[in-house]
Amino acid sequence: MIKAAFQGEPGAFSEIASRKMFGENITVSPSFSFEDVFLKVKNDKVDFGIIPIENSLYGSVFETYDLLLKYSLNIVGELNLQINHNLIAKKSYKLSEIKKVYSHPQALGQCSKFLKKMKNAEVVPTYDTAGSALISLNNNTEPSAAIASKNAAKIYNLKILKPDIQNNKENYTRFYAISKTKNKKKPEHPKTSICFELKNIPGALFKALSIFALAEINLLKIESRPIPHKPFQYIFYIDFTGAIYDEIVKHAVKHLSEISISMKLLGTYERGKSFVS
Amino acid sequence: MIKAAFQGEPGAFSEIASRKMFGENITVSPSFSFEDVFLKVKNDKVDFGIIPIENSLYGSVFETYDLLLKYSLNIVGELNLQINHNLIAKKSYKLSEIKKVYSHPQALGQCSKFLKKMKNAEVVPTYDTAGSALISLNNNTEPSAAIASKNAAKIYNLKILKPDIQNNKENYTRFYAISKTKNKKKPEHPKTSICFELKNIPGALFKALSIFALAEINLLKIESRPIPHKPFQYIFYIDFTGAIYDEIVKHAVKHLSEISISMKLLGTYERGKSFVS
Repeated sequence: MIKAAFQGEPGAFSEIASRKMFGENITVSPSFSFEDVFLKVKNDKVDFGIIPIENSLYGSVFETYDLLLKYSLNIVGELNLQINHNLIAKKSYKLSEIKKVYSHPQALGQCSKFLKKMKNAEVVPTYDTAGSALISLNNNTEPSAAIASKNAAKIYNLKILKPDIQNNKENYTRFYAISKTKNKKKPEHPKTSICFELKNIPGALFKALSIFALAEINLLKIESRPIPHKPFQYIFYIDFTGAIYDEIVKHAVKHLSEISISMKLLGTYERGKSFVS
Repeated sequence: MIKAAFQGEPGAFSEIASRKMFGENITVSPSFSFEDVFLKVKNDKVDFGIIPIENSLYGSVFETYDLLLKYSLNIVGELNLQINHNLIAKKSYKLSEIKKVYSHPQALGQCSKFLKKMKNAEVVPTYDTAGSALISLNNNTEPSAAIASKNAAKIYNLKILKPDIQNNKENYTRFYAISKTKNKKKPEHPKTSICFELKNIPGALFKALSIFALAEINLLKIESRPIPHKPFQYIFYIDFTGAIYDEIVKHAVKHLSEISISMKLLGTYERGKSFVS
């Protein structure tokens, strides 16, 4: 049976992403931090890790970008999850009865319009959305609620007082599946991610991108992260269409390596499909 | 007298940056959030705002990038501040006596090697470094300390138990000064920042960068931020050498605007000097 690690409590959006990726019939391993997820994969405790790499409202998740460079694991899958937030509680409270609403600060921000109408409730930031469901469940002193996934409501046997309360319905998180071994089967719609450090000369990034443009390889994303011991110099991460074993990609990557100080293949994988949480 | 707003408590690194930028003899306005700083500038409460845009270890400050786009203010100055962390307390405690160490999670992370040696102390995360100095000052139940700037020690009359305790000495934060009015005098070493949204066609970013490369304008940084209602599409921010009123830059920017959906000048300013905190 497939075993997959994710960061957060049971019911977290990362758990939903794990099950959309590998099916309901998997064993999941909730983890304290993103680095714990990488370590569990590295140390063969699990087959796969599921990590968020980017949210369509908030942008890139810096920590997972840095961990992709630090650990020599492979990106083997991708998935976009539409993030739907729900107000959940242990009893069918009226909204006006609720004294506290718990959730992760990002989720609270994403539901700010709904929360403005809950005038009697104090908003309390927590470590994660699924964890906030647990906190609300254990609050026996006053009526409280949490903002979390429908799956968290199901796991902790809580009632959905109000579904889909986020301000913006166009809220997607992009996840990667990571593994110690590369993808064995060739993806139908391949996408490849690499990272590289360029020589510090004017026009270096332009030259790097021109390699891909001239080969008509479609660049899908570029991200930069600082290099710790070289202030204000950057590692670039790019995603593009194509597989690393395509002749045209192989040639472009070889060319890029000639103008780079270092380069690393992060993986070739099937371009992600979108799912609803 | 010049009045400048910054985010944080008195003694924050942003206050030090304000004084390095405009001199010791200014009035400062500590502010709750980055958006408060932008609002104080917009509403003529202060002449300037000082905002961190990037740290050499942690990368870009997303929130200030997004606020630069949201508010039509001008970047009028730049400065790099070397971040030095210090263990400070109200009495000259021995390190082994200290029961709690307070600071912002980033500062705690940047001093992790030093903190490992403080085996008797519990590490407590706080909202900001200067605020942690205040919390330690008000803890009368046990010996405690904070990790903050030398300036915070001075302001709150605390003792520096151990200076410069960060793991990595190469730790710089880059700050911008923002104002309602543009720079009046021409910078000696001009730098310009713009942001733009490209048409969603293959090779669009390559085309944009080629305009600058062909004009021999040196690109210093590129950053991307998500567009809220267009999942996985991006606004690009670029910094380059030269002034917006240079003919060569004017021409490149006009050319860029022809392949962009929208474009915004953020400012031309003197390239930042480095200071020690």
